[in-house]
Amino acid sequence: MNPALDVTYRIDRMVHGEAQRVSDVVERAGGKAANVARVAAQLGGRTHLLAALGGPAGATYADNLRASRLVATTVATTRHTRRTVTVVESDGTTTAFNEAGPAMPDQEWADVRAALDALLDSGDVRVLVLSGSVPPGAPETAYAECVAAASDRGVLTVVDVAGPPLLAALAAGASVVKPNRHELRATVGAEGIEGVQALRAQAPHAVVVASDGEAGLLCVGPDGAWRATPGRPLRGNPTGAGDALVAAIAVSLVDGRSWPEALRLAIGASGAAVLDPVAGHIDPRVAAELAAAATVEPIP
Amino acid sequence: MNPALDVTYRIDRMVHGEAQRVSDVVERAGGKAANVARVAAQLGGRTHLLAALGGPAGATYADNLRASRLVATTVATTRHTRRTVTVVESDGTTTAFNEAGPAMPDQEWADVRAALDALLDSGDVRVLVLSGSVPPGAPETAYAECVAAASDRGVLTVVDVAGPPLLAALAAGASVVKPNRHELRATVGAEGIEGVQALRAQAPHAVVVASDGEAGLLCVGPDGAWRATPGRPLRGNPTGAGDALVAAIAVSLVDGRSWPEALRLAIGASGAAVLDPVAGHIDPRVAAELAAAATVEPIP
Repeated sequence: MNPALDVTYRIDRMVHGEAQRVSDVVERAGGKAANVARVAAQLGGRTHLLAALGGPAGATYADNLRASRLVATTVATTRHTRRTVTVVESDGTTTAFNEAGPAMPDQEWADVRAALDALLDSGDVRVLVLSGSVPPGAPETAYAECVAAASDRGVLTVVDVAGPPLLAALAAGASVVKPNRHELRATVGAEGIEGVQALRAQAPHAVVVASDGEAGLLCVGPDGAWRATPGRPLRGNPTGAGDALVAAIAVSLVDGRSWPEALRLAIGASGAAVLDPVAGHIDPRVAAELAAAATVEPIP
Repeated sequence: MNPALDVTYRIDRMVHGEAQRVSDVVERAGGKAANVARVAAQLGGRTHLLAALGGPAGATYADNLRASRLVATTVATTRHTRRTVTVVESDGTTTAFNEAGPAMPDQEWADVRAALDALLDSGDVRVLVLSGSVPPGAPETAYAECVAAASDRGVLTVVDVAGPPLLAALAAGASVVKPNRHELRATVGAEGIEGVQALRAQAPHAVVVASDGEAGLLCVGPDGAWRATPGRPLRGNPTGAGDALVAAIAVSLVDGRSWPEALRLAIGASGAAVLDPVAGHIDPRVAAELAAAATVEPIP
């Protein structure tokens, strides 16, 4: 609901307080949902992105979706799509400026809901992923409403959001939620297995996959509890690693993988995302190698 | 020929290497030519901007020209208009990222020349201002060709450029050139009155107005030589001060002011630009006060 056009500037070195010349500019349809769709496609999934787009950055966003061969339903809005400007220096230092974007006009939410219902009614959707920030002006219950609409039609949901919208999505029947350590603490006031259990107490039917950076994943659900850890620590670009994790879970749900196998792929995909300089891009062979090297153990 | 959409981000404090949230975004048709046109209009001049625009930023640029009531002829190009992103922190620290922009396609220069000739043939143009960088792909003689086209029709020219294009413009008959200290040194290897005389040796018919920041202006031409100094040192935003100076000279040429009076207005307008936080904007009353306080003395 809050896509952003990613603008990447490459410069030699940023001098604070001065003007710098930018020779290399790359624009790309970004935001968490687009990153999830890109990685899911790279993992062999069939994806369909739903995005509300407006203004000049929205037009560039739609052009880039076509160029990237990402299938999408776009909802036209008078709200100008926001941008994120990322400045990458030659030593890899990355400084980002994220526009907040304008408030959602009243009509847009109704249009997005209608477009979502049409997609869900098509019968082609197996898993609905809800990921990324909710713009100001959208109802607080936006994600919960989408979860309920999917549940009513037997469509599984993976929700990547924190705080009250996460609790509301769980109450509405979310199948899988994926908080990271900070989000878990912000939502239930605890981390680790304690935090996961506090979250599951609100919705025993749901699977909680909690990510903890290099420490790996904790997964607790009706079918069991597991800890998944990577084979080796990885250094690189953590932006988009959580989105790759969500993509791996969504693809695994569609493919009917067991949770231990899903977690293995999630470790592989998020690790491949860390090793890739571009958020929303992985090398599937690297993901497969890292998945094979991961350890998945049941938690007693 | 190389307009830029100015994007201004206001943030609290920039943390190098991290992501920052931008709540306030202002977009504005920018570049030196647009700044000159804005200030000339604020000084009571009738202006007509000629700009080649393309892509999403070009569309936003054109929208902003209309909103600013700047009369313009726009030439459509496949070249996407570049952007400059300026990050302003709450303590006033300003860091800018200036896109270089793509190379000019072959057809664009012919289209710009045709549009310029049509404007010059209309008989409504009294002074042609040529200001700002020449994009890659444009002929090196671009400004000189425009100066010749204006001279042929008896239209005066004010040229704000440095280096070989400045020398070529003088050879083609430029009426007024306005190098700053750095540009003078880069063009003829000398500053101050020595640099001005070296430049005039190339074109005795031309008026050279050399700016030297707080030290004021040196003006040498066929009708005399003057030094203009501000009444008091000013602190503020020097971006756009040179453009305000050019605007004051152009308006003075149209109004038939004497050079001492033109220099007085130039000191006032550029000082008002320094005191204004927005490049391309002045308070005409402040300009009038600063003009009255300026000193203009003949150089023997």
